[in-house]
Amino acid sequence: MAVLAVLVTAALFAQDQDKDKYSLKSPSGIAFSDFRGYEDWSVVSSARTDDILKVIVASPTMIKAYKAGVPGNGQPFPEGSMIAKLQWKQKKSTEAPFVVYVPDVLTQDFVMEKDSTRFPKTGGWGYAVFNYDAASDKFTPDPKSLSDCGQTCHVAVKAKGLHLPPVPEPLNHSGKIRSRNRGGGFMTATTATAPSAAIIEAIKQKAKRLSILSMMSTTMAGSGHPTSCMSAAELVAGTFFYAMKFDPKNPNSPGGDRFVLSKGHAAPVLYAALAEAGVFPESRLMTLREFSSELEGHPTPRIPGVDAATGSLGQGLSVGSGLAIGARMDKSPTRVYVLMGDGEMAEGQVWEAAAFAAHYKLDNLTVLADVNALGQSEPTMYRHDMEVYRKKFDSEGWATEVIDGHDVAAVLGALDHAKAANGRPQAILARTIKGHGVSLVAGKEHWHGKVIPKDQLATAIKEIGPAIDLPADPGKSYARTSLPKPPSFPAPAPPDYDPSKPVATREAYGFALKRLGAVNPHIVAISGDVKNSTFSEIFGDAFPDHFYQGYIAEQNIVSAGVGLAARGKVPFLDTFACFLTRAYDQVRMADISRSNINLCGSHCGVSIGQDGPSQMALEDIAMFRAVHSSTVLYPSDAVSTERLTTTMAGRAGINYLRTTRPKFPILYSKDELFAIPGFKVLRQNPQDKVTVISAGVTLHEALKAADQLRAEGTAVRVIDLYCIKPIDGKELAKEIAATGGRFVTVEDHWAEGGIGEAVLSALAQAGVAPAKSQLLAVREMPHSGEPDELLDAFGISARHIVEAVRAVS
Amino acid sequence: MAVLAVLVTAALFAQDQDKDKYSLKSPSGIAFSDFRGYEDWSVVSSARTDDILKVIVASPTMIKAYKAGVPGNGQPFPEGSMIAKLQWKQKKSTEAPFVVYVPDVLTQDFVMEKDSTRFPKTGGWGYAVFNYDAASDKFTPDPKSLSDCGQTCHVAVKAKGLHLPPVPEPLNHSGKIRSRNRGGGFMTATTATAPSAAIIEAIKQKAKRLSILSMMSTTMAGSGHPTSCMSAAELVAGTFFYAMKFDPKNPNSPGGDRFVLSKGHAAPVLYAALAEAGVFPESRLMTLREFSSELEGHPTPRIPGVDAATGSLGQGLSVGSGLAIGARMDKSPTRVYVLMGDGEMAEGQVWEAAAFAAHYKLDNLTVLADVNALGQSEPTMYRHDMEVYRKKFDSEGWATEVIDGHDVAAVLGALDHAKAANGRPQAILARTIKGHGVSLVAGKEHWHGKVIPKDQLATAIKEIGPAIDLPADPGKSYARTSLPKPPSFPAPAPPDYDPSKPVATREAYGFALKRLGAVNPHIVAISGDVKNSTFSEIFGDAFPDHFYQGYIAEQNIVSAGVGLAARGKVPFLDTFACFLTRAYDQVRMADISRSNINLCGSHCGVSIGQDGPSQMALEDIAMFRAVHSSTVLYPSDAVSTERLTTTMAGRAGINYLRTTRPKFPILYSKDELFAIPGFKVLRQNPQDKVTVISAGVTLHEALKAADQLRAEGTAVRVIDLYCIKPIDGKELAKEIAATGGRFVTVEDHWAEGGIGEAVLSALAQAGVAPAKSQLLAVREMPHSGEPDELLDAFGISARHIVEAVRAVS
Repeated sequence: MAVLAVLVTAALFAQDQDKDKYSLKSPSGIAFSDFRGYEDWSVVSSARTDDILKVIVASPTMIKAYKAGVPGNGQPFPEGSMIAKLQWKQKKSTEAPFVVYVPDVLTQDFVMEKDSTRFPKTGGWGYAVFNYDAASDKFTPDPKSLSDCGQTCHVAVKAKGLHLPPVPEPLNHSGKIRSRNRGGGFMTATTATAPSAAIIEAIKQKAKRLSILSMMSTTMAGSGHPTSCMSAAELVAGTFFYAMKFDPKNPNSPGGDRFVLSKGHAAPVLYAALAEAGVFPESRLMTLREFSSELEGHPTPRIPGVDAATGSLGQGLSVGSGLAIGARMDKSPTRVYVLMGDGEMAEGQVWEAAAFAAHYKLDNLTVLADVNALGQSEPTMYRHDMEVYRKKFDSEGWATEVIDGHDVAAVLGALDHAKAANGRPQAILARTIKGHGVSLVAGKEHWHGKVIPKDQLATAIKEIGPAIDLPADPGKSYARTSLPKPPSFPAPAPPDYDPSKPVATREAYGFALKRLGAVNPHIVAISGDVKNSTFSEIFGDAFPDHFYQGYIAEQNIVSAGVGLAARGKVPFLDTFACFLTRAYDQVRMADISRSNINLCGSHCGVSIGQDGPSQMALEDIAMFRAVHSSTVLYPSDAVSTERLTTTMAGRAGINYLRTTRPKFPILYSKDELFAIPGFKVLRQNPQDKVTVISAGVTLHEALKAADQLRAEGTAVRVIDLYCIKPIDGKELAKEIAATGGRFVTVEDHWAEGGIGEAVLSALAQAGVAPAKSQLLAVREMPHSGEPDELLDAFGISARHIVEAVRAVS
Repeated sequence: MAVLAVLVTAALFAQDQDKDKYSLKSPSGIAFSDFRGYEDWSVVSSARTDDILKVIVASPTMIKAYKAGVPGNGQPFPEGSMIAKLQWKQKKSTEAPFVVYVPDVLTQDFVMEKDSTRFPKTGGWGYAVFNYDAASDKFTPDPKSLSDCGQTCHVAVKAKGLHLPPVPEPLNHSGKIRSRNRGGGFMTATTATAPSAAIIEAIKQKAKRLSILSMMSTTMAGSGHPTSCMSAAELVAGTFFYAMKFDPKNPNSPGGDRFVLSKGHAAPVLYAALAEAGVFPESRLMTLREFSSELEGHPTPRIPGVDAATGSLGQGLSVGSGLAIGARMDKSPTRVYVLMGDGEMAEGQVWEAAAFAAHYKLDNLTVLADVNALGQSEPTMYRHDMEVYRKKFDSEGWATEVIDGHDVAAVLGALDHAKAANGRPQAILARTIKGHGVSLVAGKEHWHGKVIPKDQLATAIKEIGPAIDLPADPGKSYARTSLPKPPSFPAPAPPDYDPSKPVATREAYGFALKRLGAVNPHIVAISGDVKNSTFSEIFGDAFPDHFYQGYIAEQNIVSAGVGLAARGKVPFLDTFACFLTRAYDQVRMADISRSNINLCGSHCGVSIGQDGPSQMALEDIAMFRAVHSSTVLYPSDAVSTERLTTTMAGRAGINYLRTTRPKFPILYSKDELFAIPGFKVLRQNPQDKVTVISAGVTLHEALKAADQLRAEGTAVRVIDLYCIKPIDGKELAKEIAATGGRFVTVEDHWAEGGIGEAVLSALAQAGVAPAKSQLLAVREMPHSGEPDELLDAFGISARHIVEAVRAVS
């Protein structure tokens, strides 16, 4: 303990400034000199927040009263009683051999004294705050001391009948946004102008309207999640009609604020807010979930004002992070609001995004967490333990504030505080009631995803507010939002390789991105801590302001890309191809979002060698083919890699580029172009017996096999199927027909869903039934070894291609 | 502040027990009565941990000395100086309108006094601790007061030349494992018997050996991650050779402790530890990464002692949670240790697992976090900010301890503390240096995944310890671990449905699980907060001890299943099929782990209706087919669902069951059996013109189409392809051949990788080239609507099947 004692000697026993300090007087009329000698008073209590250590001492008179049993004995504290609360900023001890926080610098003395003559209006107690500035070693009276804690804290205990003074009016002091204890200290987030009573009342009415419309539209639809809307009504009303600025006629305009409904099943409350804001007529709400309505069960960007599809939980914060980064790159005033549910906070992606947003200091990003304590099937893990959520966001470096989510004044106050935050994203953690306002459902289990029965709707509405009468919707008159296309850009410099030197396609990807960056200012790259393996570092070194380290968090990287794309950026996202499996759901949602994102997966297949199967992508082609809007590209040399990367930047949808670890010879001249769909015939002869179709590492094996077969007198056609999706089946069928309907496919990928099946499927779609085929692919679990050993051991080397050609010939 | 004052009055001013307390004497010889009146002493300082509030007061003599400038003026504190540190358990104030922690109950008074006569050996200072028990309102002297903080804390400041007493010997008191502030309080984790100096020295030598072997084996292999091994050498040595108990001849035995290397790229240090433990000869280490060696680049369960493949980061803690739950179900003393890297803690799954483990109070689970501050491509997000990691684990409810990961005494102490923890998993957060011990690489960037060059290896080894001479490995003599099979079980009761009543296959899954649970005690189900939609709640209600709520965290659920399977359980894991995309990487790693897990995905395809595309699985068949060891099952009625669910429980590998939302008619008698591979011919006639192949909702459409076509005079064969992988292509080809080589497939799934391609591929593998086919599948992005509307709008209803049959006929 002596360790600790040494640290504060200076603050407590600095006598020099006593004279100065005891000359001070607070605006409340209290002189600091009344408390002379308080440094020697006895301890009454201690307290702490995350940042501040507090010790409370009392004057001898008051200590005597305490010892006599005041206030427990029903007696008041005597006149002249005095308390001082000493506050230090705390810091982690660097000397103690365990984790302990000790005083750093003194920050404030709070004092109160009993003098019924001077302070008759406040129960005989006067309050003052004296701030201490360590740099100048000076105290100053706090000008706001009358409105500070001395007074307001006592409001909370007034009802308990303690011998504490009544105070005129409770101030809204519910939870300052508190800082992380990393050199931060308190954030002074109190706004100068609090919302007026009229504004608060107006938002209350809006919230009621949103709840009622959510119930009406879901009951009309016969399905949906009204109770999940009702818990968020005040949060949504406050955000849309108090905090956000946007043009209802153009809600996705670059300068406007954005709203991401991460808890997508609360779609009806979002739709109601958009309608109330004038984005579309309210009558449209009653078409919810109909076949012909853009107002689907979960939001999609076919609705103006929606940036990304949600409904797979836990992705919205990543999308919001991407939007917020994009806004900052554009120097836009856009603020991004993300409404999350508590259930979805079990998704790890939420915490990937929280760390990412704090790391990049996205202070234009606000989370509203609707903690209604009830999941789909049972209560959430933490129910209404708000402190757990606060600690979690705090540990990530966010500004946090816990509020009652149905207290509109608190909601608006928190939104104001959030706007005032600097350098940190903000989490408004709102305790709410699922189904708030309607006794049939409020706070009750087993009402998730259930509508208010028709015959109980009127009663339910009446509990909240006046019924809403909507005209019939004219229907089909609301144009769905047109889907954004990637911006156009001038042609970059052509690829420029020494044809005699082999280059890995993964490295060519880096060169391509750099050339693209020089002509397309919208390119933004994010890498999953592998930029030196995927070679996006070549781009990052050239355009550091357009490159983000995404760390090892693939889910967040992909969804952040969706946010960037919604902001008009052209994201290129990279990691090892096998780790993109981590983000399959995020790619799926990007597809439903009609997003334009580009993904590069390196290190495909067994050809990576010694690292073993955990690092080998063998399912990525199958995975990306089964994405509706996908383009799947698998170049075999540096030139085609560069050309295809350039094409991706201008192409809508989910574009996937598969790159390979080993170096390959250059196959194409630098002027060669690569159409989509398309393929290249690399070996061709009227006597060709078999068509061999491949891409990537195995294309080079196919070329070896062709050379060997030619030496044996067998001609084979070799096709570089650099574009695996889409495939022009009719064109491909012509080549195969020219070799008697015989073909062999070979790929460094599982047989399922890969090149072989893609070819079979394209031919079937083209109405062609090939005579004879062999599909070479990896069909046993691989393990570590040399790349060439593995290609051979797992059946996809030149030797196997030769055998397959012979087998089908 | 008066709020706070009231709370502690009782503790501080309780006079009644003063007499009792002042009769106490500490084992150190200090009488409590020496400190009489300390309650009125003046404050010197304050401090706090996460759980304890502390106020330090000093006697008037000492205060006077402080005021005179001691210890800053170089003078010693006078004889008779006394300090008392008062400690309260803290609690969050429920009365203050903001977040503040206030004293709960007094727990201890620490006292020290200067008396050079009585305490000559400790610099003139004596120490004592008096514990306070609030329930009995009694103090007692702490028997260990001599070894407690009074003494040891001063060791840390001794070097600073302060006027504090020298103490005989530093005790290992580095960081008590501290509790979360949720009704917890301090965890008294100090062990009675600290490891001896001899043990510490032995572990130090082990750690050196592990580092050296890691360098040697990777340099020999020419690739690998030696620096990532060296940061963890002391952690691994301490865990394997001090903390863990297991039989090296049978390292996966039920009673033994388990080790999961979540940072799989540090495989060489794990292999070295296994070799040192005697699991296999050390000579084997030099075969690392060779084609013929089981010691792959990343660990797989082909190595004894390895429970799950790692190498995709961030999955090990989930696996460990599964192992820990399994051990607890078995009432086994097994403890589970998970070594994680700091880079991988960016993965959200880590925090899903952390929440899960704390929720289920897995106190048999210990994380060792190797925080070496360097990722692959650059420093990690938090570098060496240990406090961030501590706060993160603390916010999840873990016991935490921050240590220097290269201080063996600290490592062993922390491992002891972890064992003593009750009710919480423990995180030992170790600050480490990547490449520790070798100046060429220690703490340096750009050495990730790079080996020590051959010509510098001897020098590098010399920096750490004596060179190790290993004999040549005899090679190929080490049998790879045989792969576990699911335990056998008696046949459950057969399905029992009223043939006239439609049943959803998702519901039949629940009935099947319940019937299985009655005959197979190894079944464990985990659901992603959708048990009332997937119907695993039927099982959960019947066998609550075998059901775990996994909340909305699909990645963790799947990897926890791998841990359960490694413990001999038969996991059934469920969520909506579309959300299994979230866990594709985890399924991929389960496959590489040769794990036996069962997954059920409900709500497949557009037939779910109004909820829209975010809830529709349209890629799950493609995804699961592209998993090496997978079985993909898609039943169309309740009977086949039950039979197939039973089959899954006994089948090795990754078994996937696709279930559907709407109810369907019963198709089979309760005695029907369903082979794997296999299919059922539901409509058959010698005049059949076309074979229609389907499963699930579209099979029922196919039956409707067949009826309609028959009415028109066209006979079609209808096949229920309940097993989509594996398919017996030869058997299927026979049916298609019987209908002239013409077939139609129809599926509620994207065209890519689905039933159509599976059939084409199976036929190609069988060497059959069908004459004509049509593949009906979803080929446009769907939206909300009625199920029947959607089946028709997206081209997979009976009407479209009729058209397709006509087109190929």
